[in-house]
Amino acid sequence: MATKGIILSGMRPTGRLHLGHQSVLNNWVRLQDEYNCFFMVADWHAITTGWEEAKEVYPNTIEMVADWLATGIDPEKSVIFRQSSVLEHAELHLMFSMVTPLSWLERVPTYKDQVQKLGEMGKDINTYGFLGYPLLQAADILVYRANAVPVGEDQLPHIELTREVARRFNYQFKSVFPEPQGIINKEVAVLPGVDGAKMSKSYHNYISIGANAEEIKKNVNQMVTDPARIRKTDPGNPQVCVVHKFHRLYNADLLEGIETECKAGSIGCVACKKQLASSLEDQLSPIRERREQILTKKGYIDEILRAGDEKARAAARQTMEEVRAAIFG
Amino acid sequence: MATKGIILSGMRPTGRLHLGHQSVLNNWVRLQDEYNCFFMVADWHAITTGWEEAKEVYPNTIEMVADWLATGIDPEKSVIFRQSSVLEHAELHLMFSMVTPLSWLERVPTYKDQVQKLGEMGKDINTYGFLGYPLLQAADILVYRANAVPVGEDQLPHIELTREVARRFNYQFKSVFPEPQGIINKEVAVLPGVDGAKMSKSYHNYISIGANAEEIKKNVNQMVTDPARIRKTDPGNPQVCVVHKFHRLYNADLLEGIETECKAGSIGCVACKKQLASSLEDQLSPIRERREQILTKKGYIDEILRAGDEKARAAARQTMEEVRAAIFG
Ligand code: SF4
Ligand code: SF4
Repeated sequence: MATKGIILSGMRPTGRLHLGHQSVLNNWVRLQDEYNCFFMVADWHAITTGWEEAKEVYPNTIEMVADWLATGIDPEKSVIFRQSSVLEHAELHLMFSMVTPLSWLERVPTYKDQVQKLGEMGKDINTYGFLGYPLLQAADILVYRANAVPVGEDQLPHIELTREVARRFNYQFKSVFPEPQGIINKEVAVLPGVDGAKMSKSYHNYISIGANAEEIKKNVNQMVTDPARIRKTDPGNPQVCVVHKFHRLYNADLLEGIETECKAGSIGCVACKKQLASSLEDQLSPIRERREQILTKKGYIDEILRAGDEKARAAARQTMEEVRAAIFG
Repeated sequence: MATKGIILSGMRPTGRLHLGHQSVLNNWVRLQDEYNCFFMVADWHAITTGWEEAKEVYPNTIEMVADWLATGIDPEKSVIFRQSSVLEHAELHLMFSMVTPLSWLERVPTYKDQVQKLGEMGKDINTYGFLGYPLLQAADILVYRANAVPVGEDQLPHIELTREVARRFNYQFKSVFPEPQGIINKEVAVLPGVDGAKMSKSYHNYISIGANAEEIKKNVNQMVTDPARIRKTDPGNPQVCVVHKFHRLYNADLLEGIETECKAGSIGCVACKKQLASSLEDQLSPIRERREQILTKKGYIDEILRAGDEKARAAARQTMEEVRAAIFG
């Protein structure tokens, strides 16, 4: 019998998710049947770059996990847990720190970039913990002996570091860890925010996964269309229009027709937006309803997290027993 | 009612202790009544500077704790435990890493020194973990909210770092930690090894605390005396003699007489050494006997460590609950 592969993936608890997260979540949902999945609320990571939001970690966790569940992450199939509930992550991070040259961390491409970028925003993150961030990720992954990690392209250097650390540990002691592979999600669709910039909480340009009909309408109305189009009979250029980018994802069937009508000036932007809002409503309303049902059940998410924490802890403990035996045994 | 202060102190598990450790241990014994003491087997620290001895950690722990107990460390009064059994040390270390600027660690005076010194010995310890070593010490101390730490002068910068980290955490979140004081042990007697160099396991110039009569004799015979003294009637200079340094500590009553006789050339080095060996035997034999008794009881030390681990864990957990509430609460 071939054993299933193991996947670890996580998100920082930022609260309600938006449509920019949907392709990541849909990918998780697909992976659930093929792999044993560990889906982690990365609450320790949430404080590596600042403490301001620490107090929001709990409420944000509940909101985020509600979105996970509503999108189809199934606690019967997958382990949904909090990083901070499994101290073995910290233990393994400490063990790895002893075999990891400083230079490996200093050369992670995102490191200097981020220190500088956040420094310019007045945030000093030149801390010991921030330098060790990718090593904590390595521990997150390897404490479950995950052999696959769904990632974006920009995170491949972190996976490479994880592989190097695993290799060094295995070589130095005993082969305890797999060298995990990054699975690039080809279906990731980069959705812009309503203003055309990157969709992001901090830009206030997002549409929540759990948005209601009114919010959807409002958000779609804010979308930037072809600025050269003054009257609705002017021919439009869908390529420069945010509405069109959403149609491509949420209205694929009608896309060709919409493009033709826009270019011919035979559909107005108001009507075009109305069509989008209605499609979004059709596709988001079942998620929203599940979300509301989930949040109505008092303590339901807490219970799922408690159970997931237990399962994660059991798996992590087994790994750490082997790790300790490999080191001290 | 005034509560007792809390002390944390530890040693790396290097196996059987030698007379160079005795003043530290005697100090621990004195502190036991005045403070709630946590005495830690620093097994994680043992691997920050190399993995070679990892496999010796367990047997070395048993030998070392036998010496602790034989010298008078009392498991009814003090908590004797293993660092690696209390994952909360790793958790707190991780939390501290998020508030500790890299520069604080880089400027610890021992850091660059040691990297260079061990580098010259062909040992590469330019790891992330070695840089974080003093931060793990801070976590060791503060996870028990210790307010006093018996230290040597050279470790004062580490205590200062611990105080700074405590201060920063308390300021950023909530006052959870005391700012511990270093207690300098005035009675520390720096004993040379039998060859006159620093007494150290790696120099093979030590006398074990549990040495038997024969070993004592052999070790004392190896001691370097005044090299200018050829015949036993030559006047000697006790100041340059290793035997004399031991007499000062283990034969304080007779010291003046010995000095006079040595300078007058009226005692030979062989007789002088015999006197020392006999005093050492008188003082070490009760320790040796207790040590042997302790090691005869199968599993006795394991049991003490298990019980100590439990107590340490309970104390650490209480602190970490407050820490988590202070951060996320
Ligand atoms: S008609 Fe639609 S696709 Fe064309 S510019 Fe207007 S909103 Fe955009
Ligand atoms: S007589 Fe004793 S003190 Fe003097 S040189 Fe010999 S061993 Fe040392």
